[in-house]
Amino acid sequence: MPALYSRVAFIGLGLIASSMALAMRRAGLVESYTGHARSAETRATALDLGLIDTVHDSAAAAVQGADLVVLAVPVGAMAAIAQEIAPHLAHGATLTDVGSVKGAVIDAVSPHLPGSVQFIPGHPLAGTEHSGPAAGFAELFDNRWCILTPFEDVSADAVARLRALWEGMGANVDLMDAPHHDLVLAVTSHAPHLIAYTMVGVADDLRRVTDSEVIKYSAAGFRDFTRIAASDPTMWRDVFLNNKAATLEILGRFTEELFALQRAIRREDGDHLHAYFTRTRAIRRGIVEAGQDTDAPDFGRAALRKGTPRD
Amino acid sequence: MPALYSRVAFIGLGLIASSMALAMRRAGLVESYTGHARSAETRATALDLGLIDTVHDSAAAAVQGADLVVLAVPVGAMAAIAQEIAPHLAHGATLTDVGSVKGAVIDAVSPHLPGSVQFIPGHPLAGTEHSGPAAGFAELFDNRWCILTPFEDVSADAVARLRALWEGMGANVDLMDAPHHDLVLAVTSHAPHLIAYTMVGVADDLRRVTDSEVIKYSAAGFRDFTRIAASDPTMWRDVFLNNKAATLEILGRFTEELFALQRAIRREDGDHLHAYFTRTRAIRRGIVEAGQDTDAPDFGRAALRKGTPRD
Ligand SMILES: NC(=O)c1ccc[n+]([C@@H]2O[C@H](COP(=O)([O-])OP(=O)(O)OC[C@H]3O[C@@H](n4cnc5c(N)ncnc54)[C@H](OP(=O)(O)O)[C@@H]3O)[C@@H](O)[C@H]2O)c1
Ligand SMILES: NC(=O)c1ccc[n+]([C@@H]2O[C@H](COP(=O)([O-])OP(=O)(O)OC[C@H]3O[C@@H](n4cnc5c(N)ncnc54)[C@H](OP(=O)(O)O)[C@@H]3O)[C@@H](O)[C@H]2O)c1
Repeated sequence: MPALYSRVAFIGLGLIASSMALAMRRAGLVESYTGHARSAETRATALDLGLIDTVHDSAAAAVQGADLVVLAVPVGAMAAIAQEIAPHLAHGATLTDVGSVKGAVIDAVSPHLPGSVQFIPGHPLAGTEHSGPAAGFAELFDNRWCILTPFEDVSADAVARLRALWEGMGANVDLMDAPHHDLVLAVTSHAPHLIAYTMVGVADDLRRVTDSEVIKYSAAGFRDFTRIAASDPTMWRDVFLNNKAATLEILGRFTEELFALQRAIRREDGDHLHAYFTRTRAIRRGIVEAGQDTDAPDFGRAALRKGTPRD
Repeated sequence: MPALYSRVAFIGLGLIASSMALAMRRAGLVESYTGHARSAETRATALDLGLIDTVHDSAAAAVQGADLVVLAVPVGAMAAIAQEIAPHLAHGATLTDVGSVKGAVIDAVSPHLPGSVQFIPGHPLAGTEHSGPAAGFAELFDNRWCILTPFEDVSADAVARLRALWEGMGANVDLMDAPHHDLVLAVTSHAPHLIAYTMVGVADDLRRVTDSEVIKYSAAGFRDFTRIAASDPTMWRDVFLNNKAATLEILGRFTEELFALQRAIRREDGDHLHAYFTRTRAIRRGIVEAGQDTDAPDFGRAALRKGTPRD
């Protein structure tokens, strides 16, 4: 496949940007790679790891001459960066982002852009609880979804090319509007993260059960929550502040349901509990059948996967 | 190692009993294996799989002549079985169980037992979201904890032997009292399970986001909840009904904390959110350091583990 873009500039060089660079290199999708991150340390690491060919001290410098610019910083940092880079974007360049929230990013970025720039917001539904330039791996997006939320006035060619890029990185691409994206993600990712953070916080607070007991006896259930709750605090603060309405709506429904189940426990209504727990199994089956997770008994994790860091 | 028991009888032949049989056989811990399960189908499968040498149509028949009896049925089924088997237990036999709740099991089982029987309640902190006799594997308990909650009047020899058995199956053994066990497990397992069931139920209910969208876009966060919420409905109904007080207490604290975080989102108090999310990371680090989970980026699961059903 001939390269789709001649020069990509990553603003932000963490988990997502580094994985994108590796996935693009794997398939030869871009001719040259450059970028910028806030700290000199991250910039040096990204260069050392061979993620990018050149590095810049400022975002404004990094985007010059790039036909593809990827904003891969926390959602709360997008507005300032958009303002800084806007005058320096190449005519006709495609600007995209990978933020976990779309409505707020669009509001933050769009006002600054010149009309010649094709802005196509995006969000790859893939990540890990690790962050930074060394956390990336080329396979992160394989068989995962990437959602694009382009406006109607954007060039169809530019969308098609960005779609081909994500497909070349191994992802499946879907288009939807930004408000729907934000609602779907509030359900499948944002609310679950807040809930996991909360449950781990409760465990940490409880004085009659020590932290060391929580750690020791964390098999099945809680252990998965701790993994979710180990995700980057800055990223998640920004997600909640920027997808406030949808997250609060889903949390409202969640507490309603939780109260109903608590009442069923209090009243010893076993039939209600059993029926509820039976219904939720079907969704799991759907996820496994859709190839989005394996049916291997993960709770078991009997042989801890020491030798297979990325499976 | 010479065998620790001459004859074990499993009542219930599902995930836990089958894993125990395989783990005991792996280390040659017992001379002969027998058992009983409710359905003829499960009994036949357990025999076919070579988990047990002989099978019985009734629990009463299965326990005869056994020096170790393991109750491995849902918590709600323990009372009736204890009543049925009590007159048939061998003099001096050890009776144990693997129920996820200890106080209620003790209340259900103890009243029926003759004084000559050594009753030592137990709970291996290991499981998967799968059930039935074919779901078991010998490694399930390796490096996991098994909690025993023996009474003071039980023979120290009997406890030591049962401990050796669990250690022979690969587990680490801890002793504690039943109420503390039930509180610890409410935090590390029972409340998280209810929360995961609830969140998956909310997703299923929401009409503006379709089930197929939930399934498709379930990467990171929600996917782990669906795995937890795929656990056996009967087992979990029984857990909640039988660990009611501790579970409701933890859920009460959980909703309090969740409301505080919701309010922080509503008020856009980013500092509060960031501080909370930073604190919960430490617990995760502890769990990984204690060897109870791997630090591999599980959310990534880029290469779905199709060929490795049990890692
Ligand atoms: N992690 C996930 O699971 C995931 C999944 C999908 C989408 N996303 C989205 O992807 C984006 C990046 O996430 P990530 O996981 O890659 O984060 P990360 O590993 O923490 O990396 C963030 C990068 O942004 C840089 N940065 C932060 N603030 C900056 C600023 N003001 N100016 C310039 N650079 C700045 C950081 O530089 P320093 O290292 O120098 O601080 C770092 O290179 C976020 O919007 C997130 O919502 C994340
Ligand atoms: N799964 C876990 O993660 C886990 C972890 C630790 C402890 N535990 C505890 O271990 C126990 C067993 O769980 P499991 O996961 O092994 O369950 P499972 O795979 O569903 O097996 C349950 C077994 O009990 C039998 N059974 C059910 N009701 C019965 C009755 N009234 N009389 C006789 N047999 C009956 C079933 O027989 P049929 O197949 O014929 O119905 C089946 O063989 C439960 O108390 C649970 O709380 C489970």
